[in-house]
Amino acid sequence: MMAEAASSALKEAQLQRVDAIYIGVMNVEEFVGDSNFAALLTDTLGLAGVPSTRVETASSTGAGVFETAFYAVASGHMKHVLVLAGEKMTHLSTAKTTRILSEAIDRSERRYGATMPALAAMVAQKYAREFNLPQLKLEDILAQVAIKNHANGYLNHYAQFRKIITKDDYLKSQMVSYPLRLYDCAPITDGASAMVLTSQPTPIKVSGIGHATDTSAVRHRTSFTSFNSTKEAAHRAYAMAQLNPSDIQFAEVHDAFTPFEIIGTEDLGFFSAGEGWKALEEGVTLLRGRLPINPSGGLKARGHPVGASGLAQLVEIVYQLRGEAGTERQLERAEIGLAHSIGGLGNNNLVTILERTDGKRILKAGAIPFGEASTRWKPTVEIFRKSLTYTVLRN
Amino acid sequence: MMAEAASSALKEAQLQRVDAIYIGVMNVEEFVGDSNFAALLTDTLGLAGVPSTRVETASSTGAGVFETAFYAVASGHMKHVLVLAGEKMTHLSTAKTTRILSEAIDRSERRYGATMPALAAMVAQKYAREFNLPQLKLEDILAQVAIKNHANGYLNHYAQFRKIITKDDYLKSQMVSYPLRLYDCAPITDGASAMVLTSQPTPIKVSGIGHATDTSAVRHRTSFTSFNSTKEAAHRAYAMAQLNPSDIQFAEVHDAFTPFEIIGTEDLGFFSAGEGWKALEEGVTLLRGRLPINPSGGLKARGHPVGASGLAQLVEIVYQLRGEAGTERQLERAEIGLAHSIGGLGNNNLVTILERTDGKRILKAGAIPFGEASTRWKPTVEIFRKSLTYTVLRN
Repeated sequence: MMAEAASSALKEAQLQRVDAIYIGVMNVEEFVGDSNFAALLTDTLGLAGVPSTRVETASSTGAGVFETAFYAVASGHMKHVLVLAGEKMTHLSTAKTTRILSEAIDRSERRYGATMPALAAMVAQKYAREFNLPQLKLEDILAQVAIKNHANGYLNHYAQFRKIITKDDYLKSQMVSYPLRLYDCAPITDGASAMVLTSQPTPIKVSGIGHATDTSAVRHRTSFTSFNSTKEAAHRAYAMAQLNPSDIQFAEVHDAFTPFEIIGTEDLGFFSAGEGWKALEEGVTLLRGRLPINPSGGLKARGHPVGASGLAQLVEIVYQLRGEAGTERQLERAEIGLAHSIGGLGNNNLVTILERTDGKRILKAGAIPFGEASTRWKPTVEIFRKSLTYTVLRN
Repeated sequence: MMAEAASSALKEAQLQRVDAIYIGVMNVEEFVGDSNFAALLTDTLGLAGVPSTRVETASSTGAGVFETAFYAVASGHMKHVLVLAGEKMTHLSTAKTTRILSEAIDRSERRYGATMPALAAMVAQKYAREFNLPQLKLEDILAQVAIKNHANGYLNHYAQFRKIITKDDYLKSQMVSYPLRLYDCAPITDGASAMVLTSQPTPIKVSGIGHATDTSAVRHRTSFTSFNSTKEAAHRAYAMAQLNPSDIQFAEVHDAFTPFEIIGTEDLGFFSAGEGWKALEEGVTLLRGRLPINPSGGLKARGHPVGASGLAQLVEIVYQLRGEAGTERQLERAEIGLAHSIGGLGNNNLVTILERTDGKRILKAGAIPFGEASTRWKPTVEIFRKSLTYTVLRN
């Protein structure tokens, strides 16, 4: 699966060989029982010899490996680099997969039985409390995230689930951890994504990357309805790109659980705290809205092969920037796109901004709202014009 | 343990904060049962917020994470970066540790019962066959590697084993896989090492890094008595540093198994193929020899906490270059040192060359013997003068 994605990327980039391979897998050791995976995969690609490094930042691994490869190219030591991410999960029982994924949670909280859906459910409850949403209203907005992303995924032939769901389907779906139902949770997915980064000029460039961590224990944080790691990562990405949140035309936002999409759109500065659900309700984030969120279908419908998801988001953005997302999904305004990926329960997050180099920059006048613009960032890597950017996601 | 190493590094570097943390662990998932480890460790250091990424290249992880951090600094996007590597292994049974480590071996060979010591034993046998060494002679030279490295480790207060061994001790030690005895195999170790990389000018610089992979299956290789991945990595490191093998004054060579040290010194170009054992016998590689190999005691005596070993080698080189290795171990000629780290059974190897910036370069006239000198490498990162470089290795 990863070899298939890589081969297509190299073929599209018209490259037989690259200077290095960066491989993102979250937990191939426990999911599959292999270690030394970077070398194994490189050999599988017929590229034995090429330097190969595995990179991991929990469920944001796909974005983390992209960042790492970006610096390698930006350093001037590499010209063409293959970034390859994937995860194989569906062969295991849900119980085993849940146990493995729970190892990303702080040990002291894990000991009390915390799982990812349980913690996400607490976040959703707290959000409703903090912003005075009645339970029925909360259910309704979470349903709207799921319905929207399934509608987008229906149009994406790389999506794991290509089915439209209704409010009724949502309400009938199994309760996982109140208020989160099955349709609030991203599925268990096998998937791979690949991209070639190059130092040569191309029509798409990496204009901003931000990365930040947070406390391991959720209870040590100052807020449960906002992720500091997203805010800090966004701050850095906007500063590097010298862009405002209002310059972003569309985004892939980490929706492993539906409440995370709403909170994500607030943390990224698209909407004020407690206002994300209103924008959703007003249709702003629909495929044909003012600021489409998760045009790919998101983790919810496209699927969530943990180590691959962050890179699959970037692949989607490249498709949109190139105008190759297909007539039904292609966005009209697609010069600047943002990807937001959450590692663990929001403690190793990345924000990445890609931009068309030939698109007009719609910079708002005035200050960068996320703080002082920094000049120490000098984006130099651009995505290969004919690179792949190819994603396989299947169940 | 990793936090202790990191704290000392930051203290010595007089830094409260860094721009990013790169963390090397080979298999924390299976050894310890934690994932999302980069964020966890960053929080443990009191540095929640700082971007943190885990890097892995099997048993060369310590060198792989150093390479990755080097590119991040060299890109101009980072000023100070903490590189931190470690592994916790001794709490598990030897059987379980062996099973986990065997996952780095090609699946088809693992299925036939191949373990790391068994494969290394085959390499040793093949070496003896190829270079006409009688079995007694083979035993003798392997013993000499173990005796030399234990003698060096005896003088290193970071070493796991500070005991001198004799030929008699060696011969009495348990047979693991003929001809390899217990004293031919690096031990199971808990350990951590840390280093700060900076873009500021310092007296020590990274002059060369080379990295290469090889086939996953050992049987697919063209030679069993030489590692292509070492040769290619060395080629790249020498080209980047514009140095010859004969310019290297001392080296840490991956001696997870004693025959690997002999083969390593040949693959690195210090001695011709089949001649490494002669140099060893002549005392060339002793602490007071012409080309000291493993002044730290090597993986054999200093210990082999798999993910940390590659970085611990570099820490040793920094100590030597700074003249801080202690009166008994300090080398007289210590301006240019090389570290060689093997990932898996020789399929993800790295070679790193560090150099004093104020030392005179003893460049030999003429061509770089490992092939054409390359000019595309521009080393720009230098090791922080007051950085740590600190290693804890204990049992």
